[in-house]
Amino acid sequence: MAALRLLSVWTLLLTVTVCDGWLFDGFAARRHSESDEVALWPLPQKFQTSVDAFRLSSASFQIVHAKESTAGPSCSLLQNAFHQLEVNQPTAVLKAASVWGALRGLETFSQLVYEDDYGGQNINKTSISDFPRFAHRGILLDSSRHYLPLKVILANLVTMAMNKFNVFHWHIVDDQSFPFQSRTFPDLSHKGAYHPYTHVYTPADVKMVIEFARMRGIRVLAEFDSPGHTFSWGKGQTGLLTPCFSGSSPSGTFGPVNPILNSTYDFMTRFFKEVSTVFPDAYIHLGGDEVDFSCWKSNPDIQKFMDQQGFGQDYRKLESYYIQRLLDIVSTTNKGYMVWQEVFDNGVKVRPSDTVVEVWMNNNVDKELQNVTGSGFTAILSAPWYLDYISYGQDWKKYYTVEPLNFEGTAEQKKLVIGGEACLWGEYVDATNLTPRLWPRASAVGERLWSDENVKDVGSAYDRLVKHRCRMVRRGIPAEPLYIGFCPHEYSGN
Amino acid sequence: MAALRLLSVWTLLLTVTVCDGWLFDGFAARRHSESDEVALWPLPQKFQTSVDAFRLSSASFQIVHAKESTAGPSCSLLQNAFHQLEVNQPTAVLKAASVWGALRGLETFSQLVYEDDYGGQNINKTSISDFPRFAHRGILLDSSRHYLPLKVILANLVTMAMNKFNVFHWHIVDDQSFPFQSRTFPDLSHKGAYHPYTHVYTPADVKMVIEFARMRGIRVLAEFDSPGHTFSWGKGQTGLLTPCFSGSSPSGTFGPVNPILNSTYDFMTRFFKEVSTVFPDAYIHLGGDEVDFSCWKSNPDIQKFMDQQGFGQDYRKLESYYIQRLLDIVSTTNKGYMVWQEVFDNGVKVRPSDTVVEVWMNNNVDKELQNVTGSGFTAILSAPWYLDYISYGQDWKKYYTVEPLNFEGTAEQKKLVIGGEACLWGEYVDATNLTPRLWPRASAVGERLWSDENVKDVGSAYDRLVKHRCRMVRRGIPAEPLYIGFCPHEYSGN
Repeated sequence: MAALRLLSVWTLLLTVTVCDGWLFDGFAARRHSESDEVALWPLPQKFQTSVDAFRLSSASFQIVHAKESTAGPSCSLLQNAFHQLEVNQPTAVLKAASVWGALRGLETFSQLVYEDDYGGQNINKTSISDFPRFAHRGILLDSSRHYLPLKVILANLVTMAMNKFNVFHWHIVDDQSFPFQSRTFPDLSHKGAYHPYTHVYTPADVKMVIEFARMRGIRVLAEFDSPGHTFSWGKGQTGLLTPCFSGSSPSGTFGPVNPILNSTYDFMTRFFKEVSTVFPDAYIHLGGDEVDFSCWKSNPDIQKFMDQQGFGQDYRKLESYYIQRLLDIVSTTNKGYMVWQEVFDNGVKVRPSDTVVEVWMNNNVDKELQNVTGSGFTAILSAPWYLDYISYGQDWKKYYTVEPLNFEGTAEQKKLVIGGEACLWGEYVDATNLTPRLWPRASAVGERLWSDENVKDVGSAYDRLVKHRCRMVRRGIPAEPLYIGFCPHEYSGN
Repeated sequence: MAALRLLSVWTLLLTVTVCDGWLFDGFAARRHSESDEVALWPLPQKFQTSVDAFRLSSASFQIVHAKESTAGPSCSLLQNAFHQLEVNQPTAVLKAASVWGALRGLETFSQLVYEDDYGGQNINKTSISDFPRFAHRGILLDSSRHYLPLKVILANLVTMAMNKFNVFHWHIVDDQSFPFQSRTFPDLSHKGAYHPYTHVYTPADVKMVIEFARMRGIRVLAEFDSPGHTFSWGKGQTGLLTPCFSGSSPSGTFGPVNPILNSTYDFMTRFFKEVSTVFPDAYIHLGGDEVDFSCWKSNPDIQKFMDQQGFGQDYRKLESYYIQRLLDIVSTTNKGYMVWQEVFDNGVKVRPSDTVVEVWMNNNVDKELQNVTGSGFTAILSAPWYLDYISYGQDWKKYYTVEPLNFEGTAEQKKLVIGGEACLWGEYVDATNLTPRLWPRASAVGERLWSDENVKDVGSAYDRLVKHRCRMVRRGIPAEPLYIGFCPHEYSGN
């Protein structure tokens, strides 16, 4: 995906072509045995280094586009990315098939630079060919259980790029609050957010997050979960949710989205039309998890509808009915969709070609992956990576040693697992503790999703991750310590 | 300990005398039913409030010393504390027996103020009498496993004051690093710190921490743990530690402090003479926990000494010998000392009048407290409050529901339990995650140590603590959320 080549002309030459590797070579250098100071994370697919070291100079370091590059100085995304580098003198060539690959290569280049005892910046003669093992490398943040100020979202996009994550799964709304400000239905956030002005994401905010992510090679995958997890939607959209009954009269409480009313589908049509415009990604996450049937069961109108449709007492058929109508609506926006595994488990009829199934339940994961891919569905794995669950000690090792393709299945089935996500659900997390709780624990997932499957030695990963953690700290990110020790430059923020 | 009285003259009158209660009364006011917005933490001993509310005005609010106060404007500690208040108009009287009580009262006063829907600051007619249940209310921070920059220590002193803690137990050195810069033995930190310049506490740093704490009514109790936990001491003080043997020859590794050499006691005499000057508190913590006897056992010189002294194979007698000589040394500085429970458990002969025993082992806590106090020793409880151990969910409830005096013993024995400490050991904690990991979990311990023993309802504590947590956030402290929800003013820092 990316190719970087060190030459002796003290310049980083950038070539964005179809070439898919990295190479450093052809330079005279002094000998320096600091190679163990270089701690690349995630580890590249192919990596050769030597003790020949070059000193970088901030005065003369430059990045230029090679003649053969199709992306020139007019490629603003790369011009901006150049600012990420703080390195200075020797010469390298970075070849990449796409600007995204070039971004990843620039991050790796920056990680090759190390400080010597005299404060000098050095880089060793190195040759790297690199590409990700999985295409989908995501982080889920939840801005409903707690509102997340933009600052913390942006800081985590920066950190995702350092760890070669490329999908920000934004679980933007849920039962507890609806911070997404819709132009079409402003009451959704006005009445459903924790506060209508201070705890919302305006269209400008959302646009900024998307652009900030794009500049770092990160897709923003928005999730609008339904028909469950929608309590907050009901505050601003009267009639959307199912009235629950206590005996023969309404109890005053509300359940999942009401699947029997045309008004529901009219609303969803208009709402997802807006959403599909606001979020440019080719996919949208439609949720579909944890639908509680008890309210539907209590409601006489729903029961009547079940009878009319011939669903009997199988509420999974009603869920299926709703999801299918919703997917038809979203299909008209030309987006693909991602759903939580229940949509598959409950037998909702969806087209494998359009649907990515996210496996999140941490029981029988292998069996579930076997079934999902056996039915021809593309899958994303998040079950072993629920980072909101915390425990004492080095739990990153647990995340690190997961092998996503360890299920029984054909080569074709394995190919259908396109990646995974580390999920930091928000029940106990807000801007006060999100970043140190997520990093470097999520870095373990980052390497699992990027590096070769044989890169699995916990001991050598520990040594690299300790240094990578200090690198994040050096860049201003409060990534928490793995264990006893120190960083040359400690975190000094709040 | 403190008395606060609201009058109708729009002024906070301060009286520091021997009076020991708070009273608000005697004012005409509009009715306002916002009393549930007031969330005092920890809950005062006696507390009466009404719906009569006063508006505070930033233009006219002032704090003045009452005529009968023995502490006037020359009391710089109080003059500085006044700056903590951001409230503004009505009138109150604060009576306190000491400046420390006045500080606590000012914190409570600030907590009585609440914001109405129009941004106005209000305070209701209130009468409070307050004093702490336990005299020793401590937080232990560990600056050896990870170096803690001053900024994070100071931020936590501020937060301790908000929660009425009054002892900062500074576990300043340990096996892993020796950041305390000694004037007498500069090599201790020069060779024993993680870095001799960036990871040390200079004399000026230490002085600043002590003064910053004092201004907030917090004692700094320094711990220099020995004879175990001293690996880092050995780097800068050759010959201090016991050489371990492998068979008949030294293995090259070192064990606890060498208790058989006069040079050890010469060193300790000079070192603790300095320490006792640097730290003005009446107590010093001498550690004494987790002494590993295996290295002593391996050393032939130690074995010979054991024989000479008639200790047989009882290495606890050797430990006792060391501790007794150390205590004799520290006694000459006129300090009392605190020790971990093993010093008591191992039968070291120490005078109960000088010694405070800290109970930290979380098995048979009640039995240990019974024994310690039964032998006439003063005790501090930290066993149930090791906050470095984390788990998913609301573990603050576990800390909150501890009853320190729930052991069998006489009234005299109960009186010997003078308080407790929340300990945040540093294996997994540094400046990146310390503050959100400690707060508001330590607040639960704070209320247990301050409020009446009957204040133990978890539900009402939850409601108050949610608001108190938002108050800490409002004051710039990244205290983590208890559970789903929001603060009107979210944390916006890094």
